[in-house]
Amino acid sequence: MAQQTAISPTRAQDFPEWYQQVIKAADLAENSEVRGCMVIKPWGYAIWELIQQELDGRFKATGHTNAYFPLLIPVSYLEKEAEHAEGFATECAVVTHHRLEAQKDEVTGKTKMIPAGELTEKYVIRPTSETVIGAAFARWTSSYRDLPLKVNQWCNVMRWEMRTRLFLRTAEFLWQEGHTAHETQEEALEETHTMHKVYEDFQRDVLAIPSIPGEKTEAERFPGAIQTFTVEAMVQDRKAIQAGTSHFLGQNFAKAQDISFAGRDNTQQHAWTTSWGVSTRMIGALIMMHSDDDGLVCPPRVAPKQIVIIPVTPKEDTKQAVINHAQALADKLSAIRFHGQPIRVQVDTRDIGGGVKKWEWVKKGVPVRIEIGPRDLEKGSLCIARRDQPSNEKAFIAEDEFVANAEVLLQEIQDTLLKRARDFRDAHIRTASTMQELEDNFSGEGEADWLLVPWEASPEQEEELAKRLRISIRCIPCGEMGQGDSAPCILTGKPTTQRVLWARSY
Amino acid sequence: MAQQTAISPTRAQDFPEWYQQVIKAADLAENSEVRGCMVIKPWGYAIWELIQQELDGRFKATGHTNAYFPLLIPVSYLEKEAEHAEGFATECAVVTHHRLEAQKDEVTGKTKMIPAGELTEKYVIRPTSETVIGAAFARWTSSYRDLPLKVNQWCNVMRWEMRTRLFLRTAEFLWQEGHTAHETQEEALEETHTMHKVYEDFQRDVLAIPSIPGEKTEAERFPGAIQTFTVEAMVQDRKAIQAGTSHFLGQNFAKAQDISFAGRDNTQQHAWTTSWGVSTRMIGALIMMHSDDDGLVCPPRVAPKQIVIIPVTPKEDTKQAVINHAQALADKLSAIRFHGQPIRVQVDTRDIGGGVKKWEWVKKGVPVRIEIGPRDLEKGSLCIARRDQPSNEKAFIAEDEFVANAEVLLQEIQDTLLKRARDFRDAHIRTASTMQELEDNFSGEGEADWLLVPWEASPEQEEELAKRLRISIRCIPCGEMGQGDSAPCILTGKPTTQRVLWARSY
Ligand SMILES: [Zn+2]
Ligand SMILES: [Zn+2]
Repeated sequence: MAQQTAISPTRAQDFPEWYQQVIKAADLAENSEVRGCMVIKPWGYAIWELIQQELDGRFKATGHTNAYFPLLIPVSYLEKEAEHAEGFATECAVVTHHRLEAQKDEVTGKTKMIPAGELTEKYVIRPTSETVIGAAFARWTSSYRDLPLKVNQWCNVMRWEMRTRLFLRTAEFLWQEGHTAHETQEEALEETHTMHKVYEDFQRDVLAIPSIPGEKTEAERFPGAIQTFTVEAMVQDRKAIQAGTSHFLGQNFAKAQDISFAGRDNTQQHAWTTSWGVSTRMIGALIMMHSDDDGLVCPPRVAPKQIVIIPVTPKEDTKQAVINHAQALADKLSAIRFHGQPIRVQVDTRDIGGGVKKWEWVKKGVPVRIEIGPRDLEKGSLCIARRDQPSNEKAFIAEDEFVANAEVLLQEIQDTLLKRARDFRDAHIRTASTMQELEDNFSGEGEADWLLVPWEASPEQEEELAKRLRISIRCIPCGEMGQGDSAPCILTGKPTTQRVLWARSY
Repeated sequence: MAQQTAISPTRAQDFPEWYQQVIKAADLAENSEVRGCMVIKPWGYAIWELIQQELDGRFKATGHTNAYFPLLIPVSYLEKEAEHAEGFATECAVVTHHRLEAQKDEVTGKTKMIPAGELTEKYVIRPTSETVIGAAFARWTSSYRDLPLKVNQWCNVMRWEMRTRLFLRTAEFLWQEGHTAHETQEEALEETHTMHKVYEDFQRDVLAIPSIPGEKTEAERFPGAIQTFTVEAMVQDRKAIQAGTSHFLGQNFAKAQDISFAGRDNTQQHAWTTSWGVSTRMIGALIMMHSDDDGLVCPPRVAPKQIVIIPVTPKEDTKQAVINHAQALADKLSAIRFHGQPIRVQVDTRDIGGGVKKWEWVKKGVPVRIEIGPRDLEKGSLCIARRDQPSNEKAFIAEDEFVANAEVLLQEIQDTLLKRARDFRDAHIRTASTMQELEDNFSGEGEADWLLVPWEASPEQEEELAKRLRISIRCIPCGEMGQGDSAPCILTGKPTTQRVLWARSY
């Protein structure tokens, strides 16, 4: 008989549906009645807040400050950078009126609200803010002394996607977008790489996501960018998720928007700009990366609660003692710091069955569960369950020892999740040197490994192949992975030292 | 000869223009080319971040969790609560299309982007989220066990204002909106008052704004609310600023959106809801409350930098020693906590004149400036200037003593600002018992005191008077101030124990 799981279907049965069910079971988010827009529920939003807090510290440590720019972008701004405009034109929410007027429907007698007050200048809700922030940068820049400008904003953006999936692809999503302007190309490139590295480090160390850093090919670049760098995560169905990007924009936007300055040699020059962003999409990657057939598995560093204590109170006369003890234990644990912050502990004293409680916290992905009953009090021990281990595995450990070891334990779980994800990733990236291998690997609809192949072909050839096999070049990996001995491109046969990663993706 | 001030005009010369100039001089925000939308610059945004951090802690301490709801509201949602819809219909940004199409202008040859893909269901950008959050609450509520729901969201909202003023009234602004649903009227009313108190306490203790808490009259209520509670701040031109509101919505929204549940007695009931919010408008109040003719005066608790150290380096051979000393001092100060957070210190080592530096920090409102030069090093003393004192006043103090006293000094400045604001407020609230007094007080365009008067008149009579004298009832003050011995209403002569505050306002 198959073992019962908390989530149905399992990953093996139906991965996309399993994903939706994990989100539901962990109470992370839900679809709203507003087309393509999600409601991020408290447990999901708490993960986002932890992500924000951690990233925000890293942005500030690398010399950025936060600011806020308008939600609306005049359509005329978009017209200035044609490639950029085209890239976003098909998925823009357009604001055309500034009032509603009540109108009585003659037939039904009901009052309808009708758009009124048509705007001369139309606006789109920002799909990204290069244009509107560029306009501000142009106002702020007159001398090389005004540079660099290094700002970030945390905000919502809107891209009118037709097929949406919670967290991974929604019409509205939350993100941060960093925008910088520099005196020289060299500085701008350095900034682009610095932030690329910030994302890679953050995802590895905090989300336990061992993403592959690399550069996008021309066909996959951000509209208007000279170079786009990406971090690509392999989730459990072996699909790729682009989990963050950092763009070197050259002088494209600076020229379109006249971000110019008097240089050190007194000549008028255009600035060199960058932009970089990550979004709530990372939560989707996080879920698909670590979760199992019992629900969410949340890495301790972004778990809204890291330890949950469930008092087991079979008898009325010992109940209060157990609850008091649980609370005292929680206080001890909260006094310990994990990565500089008090451990996040909750005592679950709700008046519902212990089994229901346990499974709720399993599904919510809490890293450590503690059960404590009257007998444990006597023995000074605790019953511990780790979310990185099977849901029915328990260990009994002396309370003092557990408390002394709590910080180490959380890091151990964090490390285990990362190691597991990295082993999985490494087991599923293979090299290929012929088209036959590529076609075999990606034939059919099923899961497929990522293939690292010699590549030297045109954007058109890339797009043709991508379309035919429903795959894409995720990146030219940074460092050694992206380079090799000269070998024939698997498509054109041209000799090349470049390697690219082909994969299916979300 | 008049003393020179850093801001021109002065408050006495032209208060509204002085306000704009303070914002510019402190580099807080600026108008964008997007109609009615501002850019919040790093110094201004840093104040907002500190406000958020502090309030967020208070919301969580009172049992709320954060979540996120869609930016767009289907027009059909607004149609459900007629009064609410009417209240916002005249100032909505309406989304009607979801694409742009490039169209070549036959005459100019230029490419224009034209709205395309008309939407069947139109949307407005949220002016507030009662409707869309109410729809979620309706999904989440089936039994009394699901209540209370207590969520908050930090987000942007849009109200298409025609006449805007940075921070105080902008088309887009940032805010938080709390929304709760309860089983009983009593609980919902308690929540409304709890949050009203959170705002009052926060503004007094953190922003040094001694706002007057009270209830709005029917004419001034939030569209759809049963009761609206407000905190009203008196700024230096004696105008009132509504700095936050907390609404008891009764069952109005619950009925319109069917937020219902099976009660303890198994009957189907409608929930009782509340909402409450404060916005970036508070930054406008903060500026107008404390600033002077030399620029922003920022209360220490929300100052992005609380202490700035300016090394004075007249000679090359002592320069490095002075800078090192300044940095060491900064490290010592950063190790001290003020209200639980490390003191925010900056050493200004920029290669520009000392006078320019000094005035820049004066204008930015930094609470404490320290100058330190080679001689001070020898003597172990510092030259200290406090922003709550005239800009040219200095004190020399032993460094050890200063460090030991830094936390106390910051609180002293905080307290001074609050006392000053409270004294000013109390000096300019007067009682009146006749229409003549009221007419005299508010005649002309100039500054006018707030008048506390006996009031018992209809909303229509209130609106007529308000319109004629361009004033409004700010609130029926909470507590003793809002009650008195029976006296004739100054308009109708009806005997009443109620007192209301009339004032000019922003
Ligand atoms: Zn890189
Ligand atoms: Zn109250």
